[in-house]
Amino acid sequence: MKPIGILGGGQLARMLALEAHRRGLPVAVFSEHDTDPARQVVNDWSKGVPFDRQKLLAFMSKCSVVTFESEFFDDKLLIEASKVTATEVFPKPELMGLLRNRVTQKSLLDQNRLATSPWEKVSDGSEKELRRVMEKLGGRVVFKATTGGYDGYGTFVVKNEANLLAFAKIADSQEGRVQYIGEKFVPFDRELAIIASRDRNGKVITFPFVESRQENSRCLWTIGPLKETSAMKAMKNGIAKFLKKIDYVGTMGIEFFEIDGSLLINELAPRVHNSGHYTMDAFDFDQFAAHLFAVAGIALPNPKANGKAFAMWNLLGTEKASDGTIKSLTPWNCVTDQAKLHWYGKETSRPGRKMGHINSLGNSMSTALAKAKKAATKSRREIGF
Amino acid sequence: MKPIGILGGGQLARMLALEAHRRGLPVAVFSEHDTDPARQVVNDWSKGVPFDRQKLLAFMSKCSVVTFESEFFDDKLLIEASKVTATEVFPKPELMGLLRNRVTQKSLLDQNRLATSPWEKVSDGSEKELRRVMEKLGGRVVFKATTGGYDGYGTFVVKNEANLLAFAKIADSQEGRVQYIGEKFVPFDRELAIIASRDRNGKVITFPFVESRQENSRCLWTIGPLKETSAMKAMKNGIAKFLKKIDYVGTMGIEFFEIDGSLLINELAPRVHNSGHYTMDAFDFDQFAAHLFAVAGIALPNPKANGKAFAMWNLLGTEKASDGTIKSLTPWNCVTDQAKLHWYGKETSRPGRKMGHINSLGNSMSTALAKAKKAATKSRREIGF
Repeated sequence: MKPIGILGGGQLARMLALEAHRRGLPVAVFSEHDTDPARQVVNDWSKGVPFDRQKLLAFMSKCSVVTFESEFFDDKLLIEASKVTATEVFPKPELMGLLRNRVTQKSLLDQNRLATSPWEKVSDGSEKELRRVMEKLGGRVVFKATTGGYDGYGTFVVKNEANLLAFAKIADSQEGRVQYIGEKFVPFDRELAIIASRDRNGKVITFPFVESRQENSRCLWTIGPLKETSAMKAMKNGIAKFLKKIDYVGTMGIEFFEIDGSLLINELAPRVHNSGHYTMDAFDFDQFAAHLFAVAGIALPNPKANGKAFAMWNLLGTEKASDGTIKSLTPWNCVTDQAKLHWYGKETSRPGRKMGHINSLGNSMSTALAKAKKAATKSRREIGF
Repeated sequence: MKPIGILGGGQLARMLALEAHRRGLPVAVFSEHDTDPARQVVNDWSKGVPFDRQKLLAFMSKCSVVTFESEFFDDKLLIEASKVTATEVFPKPELMGLLRNRVTQKSLLDQNRLATSPWEKVSDGSEKELRRVMEKLGGRVVFKATTGGYDGYGTFVVKNEANLLAFAKIADSQEGRVQYIGEKFVPFDRELAIIASRDRNGKVITFPFVESRQENSRCLWTIGPLKETSAMKAMKNGIAKFLKKIDYVGTMGIEFFEIDGSLLINELAPRVHNSGHYTMDAFDFDQFAAHLFAVAGIALPNPKANGKAFAMWNLLGTEKASDGTIKSLTPWNCVTDQAKLHWYGKETSRPGRKMGHINSLGNSMSTALAKAKKAATKSRREIGF
């Protein structure tokens, strides 16, 4: 039995590998560092940088199918390696390339009539051009790096002249090395997210819409399931059509702005996603299982909820941990009712770094969230990160 | 962070390791074969036979604490290795030695006034002695090997003269190499089981009583939770006192005969146990987590149920699989509502071999069991084992 290959060694790869183990699906990981979270949980580990063609070919040759935990691999290299090794890669590397770039992602959404905030491509980043984009998009614009931005890195909210001049300076100093997109600032009521998955036979499943709360541009928590409105229903149908249209295979995380009940897609990622971690405990199979089933050619079942409501609380590193080293044997686990710790096994903590998360169930979203928060507070105190 | 060491590489070690990973507890496995189920799911694996002193010392030296998936390790060697390496072993190897032998186990139960079926030690296994034992125990006796018997191996039900003569021949031919115990045949109504766990601070938790059904001396399924009778309550209290008395640390599986509502302990195992696999999906933390918490010095929380009722169905190898090789990429996973496959990753199937299990939830034990059975049938058809 050839293993399912996973490119990348972070927590998403780790959780994919753990779910594969639990289901008895053989799995292999290709990643760079001995201390990678995913490395600790697999025997079949290949060390290498993702751009090392020879190592990538060797890895892919021994796999039945290959997937990735991050969209920032070299799509061209993957397309070539897939041909050379006759090993399929899902989601298709072509889609990875298109979807990781905010300009091509937004274009694709527009082509497929999926609502997203108005946007403009930024070419040279000159003050003049920025002013033109500002004017076109209504005077309040969020400039974002087209690729590589995450957790708020590479994002600039420009609402006034001072903001504009400051950002123009930054854009200019980068001498075109960073490409930007301008997106109309959306005064949203709340942020939502959904996990969708499509298998190789074309079946699409979705988990419920959740509300996600960001603090300092990082996801702090998600709660669900939200009562499905007609706007949500329409969006779900639109997404299913979109996945079919682009022949997507695997799990996708999609984030939204909600304004007066209507939905705009903020961004999507062609992979498992932080906003879907609640599925690990709130459903009879989770986003990781769904991704593995989809890429391995196993028919997707329909998810069933384990409880009425759920919450997920991210455990983010703080500045407290003096030298960033996690010293204890994770002396904390599961104390409040139905709150479960998932810890990623990172050796060091940094402010804002995703160290783990808490999943909880409850009779309502607010009770679930309260449980998760309580457990998160306790875990922080006892583990110290 | 030094890992928790696990001796043994079978499915119990595998499930301990997976639960450790999920919780972020570092873990290392010491086992014999490259194809061991636990080996596939850990990076930190040491190859060796359990009686290799040097390798055992090297393994134990790098661990924070050591535990085992089977009671058939060398208790004397473990006691010595624990001293030499200053690494504690839980449950204590002394208890492993006492509890794996049916004679010393029964003696210990008698001393602690825990009800068990009347028994007699068999010394020379002569026909004369066997007749004496038969007479003393009421004419119907189950003879069992005192150590090493499992899944019906080494067990002989003797109800009449022909049975007696046949067993006497077997016992004689073994020339004393196998020691036997005679146990009064108990015409039980059903078999029950319970998982108990005690942490290093002395807190004892129990999961609910379950009914377990054996076929051909192998567990086929368990269902629960049973409504707790006063006899069950009294037994639970007795077990808690017993664990305290012997200073047991870790998870223990205990099996019972139920006769007219009263309980007799059939046997217990100083480790995680097949009858407790349902906990993986039916509770907010499972017997594996409980064992890890207990041995690692983490306080045991109180388990909370995820649903009203649950079932577990063992996937046992059949004679169908022509050459015993599992050929497919486990092409089956989770189809019926809330039924979950746990597959152990064994490379070959044998009749009766434990290949995996299905856990299910339901509004009643019977609906949960029906779901599990349906899923088991489907999995057998699709995986082919």
